[in-house]
Order: sequence, then C-alpha cells, then structure tokens
Amino acid sequence: MRRYIITAFSILFSVSLIAQNHEVKEDSIKIRQFYNAALVKGQAYKWLDHLSNNIGGRLSGSLNAQRAVEFTKAELEDLGLDKVWLQPVMVPKWTRGAREHAYIQTGPGMTTEVNITALGGSVATSPGGLKARVLEVNGIEDLENYKADIKGKIVFYNRPMKPELIQTFEAYGGCVDQRYSGAEAAAKYGAVGVIVRSLSHKIDEYPHTGSMSYGDLPNDKRIPAAAISTKDAEYLSGILKLKKDLEFYYKLSSENHGEVKSYNVIGEITGSEFPEEFIVVGGHLDSWDLGDGSHDDGAGVVQSMEVLRLFKETGYKPKRSIRVVLFMNEENGLRGGNKYAEIAHSKNENHIFALESDAGGFTPRGFSFEADDAQFAQIESWKPLFKPYLIHYFERGGSGADIGPLKKGDIVLAGLRPDSQRYFDHHHAATDTFEHVNKRELELGAATMTSLIYLVDKYGMRHINLQTDKKL
Amino acid sequence: MRRYIITAFSILFSVSLIAQNHEVKEDSIKIRQFYNAALVKGQAYKWLDHLSNNIGGRLSGSLNAQRAVEFTKAELEDLGLDKVWLQPVMVPKWTRGAREHAYIQTGPGMTTEVNITALGGSVATSPGGLKARVLEVNGIEDLENYKADIKGKIVFYNRPMKPELIQTFEAYGGCVDQRYSGAEAAAKYGAVGVIVRSLSHKIDEYPHTGSMSYGDLPNDKRIPAAAISTKDAEYLSGILKLKKDLEFYYKLSSENHGEVKSYNVIGEITGSEFPEEFIVVGGHLDSWDLGDGSHDDGAGVVQSMEVLRLFKETGYKPKRSIRVVLFMNEENGLRGGNKYAEIAHSKNENHIFALESDAGGFTPRGFSFEADDAQFAQIESWKPLFKPYLIHYFERGGSGADIGPLKKGDIVLAGLRPDSQRYFDHHHAATDTFEHVNKRELELGAATMTSLIYLVDKYGMRHINLQTDKKL
Repeated sequence: MRRYIITAFSILFSVSLIAQNHEVKEDSIKIRQFYNAALVKGQAYKWLDHLSNNIGGRLSGSLNAQRAVEFTKAELEDLGLDKVWLQPVMVPKWTRGAREHAYIQTGPGMTTEVNITALGGSVATSPGGLKARVLEVNGIEDLENYKADIKGKIVFYNRPMKPELIQTFEAYGGCVDQRYSGAEAAAKYGAVGVIVRSLSHKIDEYPHTGSMSYGDLPNDKRIPAAAISTKDAEYLSGILKLKKDLEFYYKLSSENHGEVKSYNVIGEITGSEFPEEFIVVGGHLDSWDLGDGSHDDGAGVVQSMEVLRLFKETGYKPKRSIRVVLFMNEENGLRGGNKYAEIAHSKNENHIFALESDAGGFTPRGFSFEADDAQFAQIESWKPLFKPYLIHYFERGGSGADIGPLKKGDIVLAGLRPDSQRYFDHHHAATDTFEHVNKRELELGAATMTSLIYLVDKYGMRHINLQTDKKL
Repeated sequence: MRRYIITAFSILFSVSLIAQNHEVKEDSIKIRQFYNAALVKGQAYKWLDHLSNNIGGRLSGSLNAQRAVEFTKAELEDLGLDKVWLQPVMVPKWTRGAREHAYIQTGPGMTTEVNITALGGSVATSPGGLKARVLEVNGIEDLENYKADIKGKIVFYNRPMKPELIQTFEAYGGCVDQRYSGAEAAAKYGAVGVIVRSLSHKIDEYPHTGSMSYGDLPNDKRIPAAAISTKDAEYLSGILKLKKDLEFYYKLSSENHGEVKSYNVIGEITGSEFPEEFIVVGGHLDSWDLGDGSHDDGAGVVQSMEVLRLFKETGYKPKRSIRVVLFMNEENGLRGGNKYAEIAHSKNENHIFALESDAGGFTPRGFSFEADDAQFAQIESWKPLFKPYLIHYFERGGSGADIGPLKKGDIVLAGLRPDSQRYFDHHHAATDTFEHVNKRELELGAATMTSLIYLVDKYGMRHINLQTDKKL
C-alpha cells in the first residue's frame, strides 16, 4: 500500500513538475516573441518620432497637448483594440510667455547673462523685471540660518544633487523640495524672488524647469521663481564669494490661466476570461515645454501603447482586460491620474495591477513594486524568465505618480526602472529631445513591460484572485 | 564530553561567522569608499577629456598615439606609483590618406554620393578610383551562391547585425567576418573590390571602419575594401533592386607602411605582502582615426588608471602587485597585448588575474570571466557586495582581446561588461567622441573595476594561491 501511495505521489509530483516546466517553457517562448517583435519590427520609436518631432512639447492646456491626444487616440484606434475613448479632465493652464531673461550685475555696466527658465506655476515678475541682491542658501532648512538677512533679497537655492547616490532619483528626491516649495518658504521670510539651481548632475548651460507650488500663500505674497543652469549656479556661487552685494536681474512673463478641459486617452483589449479584472499600463502624455518631452514621458507613452500592439502582433489574447492609459497633466497637477482613479473607484472596477513607465526611455533594468509579501513573492518567481534580457532589478519601492491614486485594496502598482544615470541630464530641459532616446533601449523597455503584463494577465495576482483562482 | 565538543564547535563556528561578517562589513565599507571617491572627486572624466579633445584619434604608429603614450605616462607618474615604464613594441603603421570618395551611378550623370571609409589595412584603389558593377551578398557564405557572377564586380556585403540579440556584441560577432575576411574571400572569386555595410544597428550616415586582413593573398590579388554607412547600404540595396547594372565608384588612398616602434604604458603599485603575484587592469591606448576613440577605448584607459588612483586616494595598500597596462595596437594587430604576455611569460611572472575594460564607457552591468569552477564560485560569492551599485551580471564568457594572450595556467581573465545597447552606434565611427560618454556612467565603471580588483587583491584567487593561502 505504502509503495502505491509513494508511486501515486511520485506520479502526481511528476505531472505537476511537467506541467510547471511546460508553463515555464511556454512563458519563455512567449516572452522571446515579445522581444523579437519589439526589436525587429517595433512601432514605439516611430510613434515617439511623431510625438517629439511632429508635435513637440505638450504642456497641459496647450494646443500641442490636444494634438497629442488626437494623435495617440487615432493610433490606438488603428490597432484594432476593443475600445478606445477619451476621458475628460480639467487641467490647470500655465503659460511661459516671452522668453525669460536674466543677468548678474557686479557693477555699473558689468553684467553676465544667465540661462534661466520660469518654474511651472510661477507668477511673472513685473514687466520691467526684478533686480535685487542675492542670498545663497543650501536648501530650505538653511533659510533659518539667514532669516534676518532674507528680506528684500532673491533667495538662491544651490543645494546640488548628491553625486554619490547610485540611483539618480534618490539624489533628485533629496533636492526637489527647494524647487517645489522654495518660493513659498522664502516668501514667508520676506524674499522678493527665488532662483534655484537646476536639478541635474551635469554641469551645463541648460536650465531645468519643473512644477512649484505657493501652498496657501495669498496672491500678493507670491514671488517669481525660476531655475538657472548648473553652470550659472556654479558661477553665481563663485562670484558671490568675491562680491556679496552683486545684483541679480530676471524677467518672467509667465501666467496662470485657470483650468481648461483636456483628456486622458484610453484603449482597452477586453479580457477573454475575466473581463472584469483590469490591468493598466501607462505613461503621461503631457510634458514640459522646453524640449519635446521625449524621455519625460513620450517614451512611457509609446512603450505603453506598444504593450497592447505587441499582444496583437504576436496573437496573444489576454484573459483579463488590459488598458493603456495615457494620462494628462502629470507634470503640473496630476489631474489625469486622479481622474482615472476617481472614475475607476466610483465604478467599482476591479483593478488588480497597474504599471507606469515614467523614468525615461533608457535601457530597462527592471521594476519596482508596491505589493504585499505574497504578491511580491509571486512576482519574484518570474525573475528567471527575465534574465536572458538582462533584467535583474525586482525591488519594492515607488511605482509612478499617475497610477498612485489607484492604490486601494489589493492592487499591485509597479514602475519600470530604466538605467537612471542620464535621466536628469535631460529632465525638464531643452535637451529632452528625440535624438537622446536610443531606439533599442526604448524597445527593450517596451518588451520588458509587455512581458510583465503578460505574466500578470496569465496568472493573475495572488490575494486578489481568490474567486477566479478557484475556477482554474 | 560531547557537550564540550558541541560548545567548542559552536564557539569556533560563531567566531568564524563573526570574522566573516566583519570581513563583509569591511569590504562593503571599502567598496562604498571607492564609489564615493569615483563619483565625487573622480579623475577619469578629466583624463578622457584630454585624451579625446586635446589629443584625439590614436591610430597605431601615428603622432597622436605617441602623444597618448607620453600623456598617460606623465599622469601615471604624477600618481606616485612605485614604478611607471614604457614597454617597447613594434606595431603596423597604416594610413588612411586623403579623404575617401564614393558614389553610385545609375546612368550618365546620375550619381548619388555615398559615405565611405577604408577598412583598416586595406590597399588603395588606383589613383583615379575604381568603378564597377555591384553584387550584393548576405555575408561570406553567400558568395558561393553567386560564384559565376562575381568576376570583375565589387562585392557588397550587406548582412545586417541581428536586432533581436539582446547583447549587441553577439550581433557584431555574427557579422564581423564580412568586414575582416570579406575582401580575401571575394578576391578569390575574382572580385575587384569590396564594400561592407557598417557594423551598427543604427541607420545613419556614418561609415564604421575596423580591421581587415587579406590572409595569405599575394599582394597583386589584394582588392580595396571599405565600409559604407548603414543608410547608404539600405539605399544601395534598394536601388539595386531597380537597377541591377548600376555602377559604384570609390577612391581610397590608404597605405601600409610596415612596422614602427611604439609602447605599452605600464604603472605598478608593488604588493606589500605578495609582490610576486601580479594583477593587471587595462584597456587599449590606440584607437581608430575617425572619431577621438572616447568609448573605444579611451574609457577603458582612464578607468584602468582610475583603479590605481582610487587605491591611492582611499589609502588602500594592495597586498599584491597591481599593474595598470595601457596596451598599444589592439585595433589592428594586438601587438601590445602579445608583447606584454610574451615578456610576462618569459620572466615567469605569476599573473593571477587580469581585467580589461574595452566595451565602452557606458553604465557597468557587471563582468564576464574566464575562470574554472572554483575560481568562479569564489568570484560569485562577492556578488552581494556589488548589489547596492546595481551590478548584477557575473557570467562566464570572453574577457578582452589585449589580456587574452596572458592566458596560461590558473590566471583568471575578466572583462568589464557595460550596457551594450549604444556601443555599436559609435564603434569605429566619427561619432565615437567625448560628448557621447556620460561622466557618471564612466565613473561607475571605474569604481566597479576598482572594487573587483580590491577583492581579488585582498583574497587572492583560489587554486593559484595554495602557497600564500597557507600563510594566511
């Protein structure tokens, strides 16, 4: 009897192993198909070419943002998805106005031009510009040390990104408060303006814009805020050591125009077995206005579209409903992300997984996940499938701004993690342009995303799929 | 008694664990120091700036190659190493001569200019150039299919690098024979010339040169060989389908000048405990002449120099003798690599490890190793120390051309493996220039190399150090 039990057990075990090996083999073949299709006949780079070179920068509320909505909607329709629609959302409209101008004045007639750009959301200077003495500080906390000295001055935030941090997003995270909240903080001490060192490791002449907020400051207390290039920041800091009472002049013509209507662009392949379970893949369609937004986040947009195209191209019919969501207004309001989540939650849609690509179109290294232990263990079990593609990074961590509002219940959020070394060289600057995206790197990212979405679709996510798992 | 044994064993085991943990902690602190020093006050990028922008392309036998020898020797001397010397080596001297010229002629007066570059080692055309009909083939094996049709024609090798291979070096390996041996093979069938599609994934206007050989073909059978840009290769292939009898014209003024004297540049920190054990780290000082050789292999040169500088900077005194070797003539002869090995072997120097960086200055992903099982197991045990730096790739595989000749006995050879996606966009082309090297990516490579050399120095390599291990 015992022998029979052992034999039966062995057979069962073998059958289960064979079945498992069969699955692994099927998965690795499918994943190889995705990479082949992305690298040999990919569409992502062509889409990005159009988005970057035929459309260009896509600031929320701009005509270009609307052109991007129409272009991507038409392209998704051409893919033959089950549904494509626009989701209306009100977004803030801010305009830069005429080109900014700035200089350092060290004496009568002794001026040095400075490359400057208004921060997104900043008020303008008076039409004649603003000229004042400068106080350099090393971040917001440092204001406290100079509080008696701030009134009537332009505060110059010059804390650099830490070069020793390996992941550049960490270095960015350690400095971005001076850009986002620096004006609010300095205004409270009586500063008349704020200039910020651009958030980039690279010492060059390009100023980097980005969002800022005045918090609850009343309108009449709001002071104009701008970024200067890292090269100019180094120069200004050096020259201030020689001449503390130099003056800085700048002129901004930016303007806040209230809210206007815009759209998230959404496409869906409806699931064949569990159409009520949703998996989202997305990036954001808006960008800053200085470059053409190729890395931030044209790359994420076209990679997300490519995920659904690669499913079609390779004949994969998802069990669950896969949505590509091209979010509007990540950069200066997150209205698109909030709107998508609001509607999904109000309809009680069961979102099990969302993946965002918003860290540039560089060589993918892996993903970071917001997941519980069981979910993460399941995801980690897929790691070997990615090894042939040099995808090694599976860690817990933040996902993406646009999908953040979807967090509720058991949903797993994920972010594509490309190599980050060059990202901030281009981020929000005039150099975020098409020629800085490498075709293969972009395509590898798209294939990597497709492979993950395929696995999530095929196996579902633990914890959430108790019902559907029973059916399997 | 048994209890005492168990207790004694537990104590011993704990002591050993504590010692091991202490080592791991010491190693991770030291490695963090290397990365910090490389990223915060690195020298590699400044050296590369000089090598690329003040010197430039460094073809073997050129004045620039000699300038590079003198510059790097002086810089190594400034580091305060224990020894710096030049190792003489005879190298082939080949010159490109006047700028190449080529066009496609589809009818009287109907010509289209083509971007062309002589392959290194090619003979010239006659002074008036060469004009003939073209036969397109898909690699050397394909010649057989057209053998009756080759005589009097220019053979056009147009096999593209396979885009679906993840590691671009594999795709390169699958095509490089048409560049290296294509002329020899085609000449045997009576071809009058050879043009080769540039070895790059990118479709652009830059032709990529590289070494070629006529094998044992007598001088009067040698035919001129050149590369055309991928864009021109696509164009020529397309237009050939419309007009099979079009003519291709090209003019090369290249010349082989025999051998001239040059040098490997070598610096050494002599080991404090085992000075007779040598560890080599290096790259090659020569480059092709079209760009400034920043990625191939200026990056490897300055990273290797930086390894010894980082040891000095962080106060690490190696137990074993660490040599930086800047090899001459990797590109068209490998004379430097052969000479270094010849002398090392003739002196019976005990080389235990050699590391080459010759795959570009891109974000490091890890290393490939030529090692036996025990050696590789030892190396793999260090992997966790590299994880904080996103170094995941430890695989067996080829190392580097220059250190290959050192292979003898138990030596372990290793190659730095940076991200390879963009490498062949620049390789041997006019676009291999300084601005395509990212400072942080270069520095991360140098720190990664330093960390590996540190571990090899500290622990030695299994199998080889039976004697020294006894002393420990």
